[in-house]
Amino acid sequence: MTVSPAYQIYSDADRITHYNEKLASFTEADRPYTRLVFSKEYHAARAWLSDEFQALGLECHSDAGGNLIGRRQAGAQATAPQTVIIGSHIDTVPAGGRYDGIAGVITAMEVVHYLNAHQITLPFTLEVADFLGEELNLWGTSCLGSRHMAGLLNAEMLARRDETGRILGEEIAACGGSGMPPSGARPDAANILACFELHIEQARSLYDADIDIGVVTALPAIDRYAISMTGAVGHSGTTPMHGRKDALVCASGIIQQVSMLAHDIASRSNQHFVATIGKLDVLPNGATIIPGQVEMILDVRSASNEAKSEFLASLADALDEARQKTGCDIDLALLATAEIAPMDSSLQSIITEQAQALSLSHTPLASGAGHDSAHLSRFAPAAMIFIPCVDGLSHCAEELTSSDAIAKGAAVIIRSILSLAEQVAK
Amino acid sequence: MTVSPAYQIYSDADRITHYNEKLASFTEADRPYTRLVFSKEYHAARAWLSDEFQALGLECHSDAGGNLIGRRQAGAQATAPQTVIIGSHIDTVPAGGRYDGIAGVITAMEVVHYLNAHQITLPFTLEVADFLGEELNLWGTSCLGSRHMAGLLNAEMLARRDETGRILGEEIAACGGSGMPPSGARPDAANILACFELHIEQARSLYDADIDIGVVTALPAIDRYAISMTGAVGHSGTTPMHGRKDALVCASGIIQQVSMLAHDIASRSNQHFVATIGKLDVLPNGATIIPGQVEMILDVRSASNEAKSEFLASLADALDEARQKTGCDIDLALLATAEIAPMDSSLQSIITEQAQALSLSHTPLASGAGHDSAHLSRFAPAAMIFIPCVDGLSHCAEELTSSDAIAKGAAVIIRSILSLAEQVAK
Repeated sequence: MTVSPAYQIYSDADRITHYNEKLASFTEADRPYTRLVFSKEYHAARAWLSDEFQALGLECHSDAGGNLIGRRQAGAQATAPQTVIIGSHIDTVPAGGRYDGIAGVITAMEVVHYLNAHQITLPFTLEVADFLGEELNLWGTSCLGSRHMAGLLNAEMLARRDETGRILGEEIAACGGSGMPPSGARPDAANILACFELHIEQARSLYDADIDIGVVTALPAIDRYAISMTGAVGHSGTTPMHGRKDALVCASGIIQQVSMLAHDIASRSNQHFVATIGKLDVLPNGATIIPGQVEMILDVRSASNEAKSEFLASLADALDEARQKTGCDIDLALLATAEIAPMDSSLQSIITEQAQALSLSHTPLASGAGHDSAHLSRFAPAAMIFIPCVDGLSHCAEELTSSDAIAKGAAVIIRSILSLAEQVAK
Repeated sequence: MTVSPAYQIYSDADRITHYNEKLASFTEADRPYTRLVFSKEYHAARAWLSDEFQALGLECHSDAGGNLIGRRQAGAQATAPQTVIIGSHIDTVPAGGRYDGIAGVITAMEVVHYLNAHQITLPFTLEVADFLGEELNLWGTSCLGSRHMAGLLNAEMLARRDETGRILGEEIAACGGSGMPPSGARPDAANILACFELHIEQARSLYDADIDIGVVTALPAIDRYAISMTGAVGHSGTTPMHGRKDALVCASGIIQQVSMLAHDIASRSNQHFVATIGKLDVLPNGATIIPGQVEMILDVRSASNEAKSEFLASLADALDEARQKTGCDIDLALLATAEIAPMDSSLQSIITEQAQALSLSHTPLASGAGHDSAHLSRFAPAAMIFIPCVDGLSHCAEELTSSDAIAKGAAVIIRSILSLAEQVAK
């Protein structure tokens, strides 16, 4: 006799597969899997999802940010009930995958299935959320719904037009939102007990180490800098080496230092730290001309402010050294910055305990990417679970995880919610 | 009483200024100084130059390569007379200068002035040459006239069309050339005793050191390589440092090594050595994407085969190291190569002796750029003199040397020709 693993009591892999295949069917036909926010495929998928929420007995509505919310009321015994939110998103990037965001929405439905099947009445309201448009969109912003819920989707953003003239606010209104900027975080923010989100890792550390559950410690600070190096154009034949101010030699020294520093910091800490120069342009970019100017963008993501400070101090040294070595002028300008979004430590503890109770392998893990949970964490305790995805591939049609991996994560979240319920009942 | 310097006996700075101003007047009006080969300004300047050659008593014609040649016959006592060639070019790059090439043609006329004034009959034929179109042109080739004289302007080149459909061969024919490919170097190549060319240095070593005469040792070998690095595209946020194959980090390591090697080789040898990566393109070149591919072009110019060999061996090591460090594939492909053109050592000795005799400061010097003399050296003993130009500026309107500096170089060449004449007469 084979004993089924404990997590299978909580969640049904076959049902997960069914939900996943159904959502995958809402795609541009010639570009799987594409379900861009506000597209007709997106609206169709949301209509289906709304029906499913209602079939689960949830009270369904769109909030002012265009988020699709299914509410399961607290038991009558609860006075001034608090709220627990669980959700993710169903929009995709162009030619994206079947699991990014989607796995989290399906998990939320699995939670309700379990509660319904066991006729469990919680001492708090449970909100299942499909957050509006999480992916970076044509209006140059991401996490529309969670950003709105946090009070951070401002009037300037809402007034933006895409290439075809569509106004962001009007598109949000067409999804049931107000289309107006929020006056702050949602009014009941103080009553929100917890937010949960399950997501594929979009990197390979869990997959490579064959670990079931990543307990996310923080979403990264993201800082983006423009670095501009100005040297002197010259003839590549007649200008002697000692008479040069080569902006590309200058840039290459900085790139080497950035890479070495980031490797060093990442290897010394258990926390996520990455630094990337992904964009670089040389002027005038001619084979026989010494580069007079190089423009590049540095993207730094850090789960720790200490690591970020250490990096920036060492970067300043590296720029000074490059200046002295090459005689080039170097300008560093901050383009954009976002603070670290730490996940709630109590919720991390609960998740870890429940993974342990289910005999699932688990590890604390910092996220490299941003998620809706970053915005939720600005106004409420938030927690994320990562599950492995094959080869770390994401934002592509090959993106893959298993229904079983989702079921494991769902089981951890269900037990975490039950654990919270016990705490509240005490 | 002030004693005039010795070189003033040989050449007249005022006349040099007159010639220079006259040639500068043949320019596109709104883009000084622009006299592109085959342009109406070029044809007008050549017509004037042909008249000047004839006024100097030279027998004037265009050869098969479209070179304007003014011939001064050897004395009657010379049997089976040899030939000495002296010249340079009068075409410019777009928005170029007043001295590049032009100083050399004026010097050739100064030689004839001296010989005429002193009624000197040489024991060899003297040919004053304005070599056709030395600058890189719309047909993608340079040194049209000297290349033709060396037998190296081939049928494929002559058949090329520019953007407006003009065929190179037809343009050469309009300058009095045959428009046909040569069957080899000029038939009397074995009878050419020497070729001389004076040119501005187009770099700042003579100017900075306040030296009158650079005795050119060699024109450089020019090798151009395409280096392609292939890593793996990845998300700049979610891909950990240890899991990356960053093609730009790979490229930057190579650029650093190339620069260090070139500095080292250049500083250890007295000979010209430069290596430049002037063109670099990143793919996909997005701020949040780890570069998957980098394409760059390496330009190496060396006056010594030993230096070149040393560099290439060290480059191979650098590529291996970059491969191992970054996990990227690296491909190195030779795009173009030209051998070193050593200047004739006997002629270098003569030039050095004559500079010494005139109490002019002088130094041996390798050229960084290519010149007509590179092609002349393929079929005859060739020599070049460099004179200083202000701040090393060239190929721009600010290009500047003095008539006095040209006069010094002309005096050295006149004495060198007289010295050759003595040797022949013996």
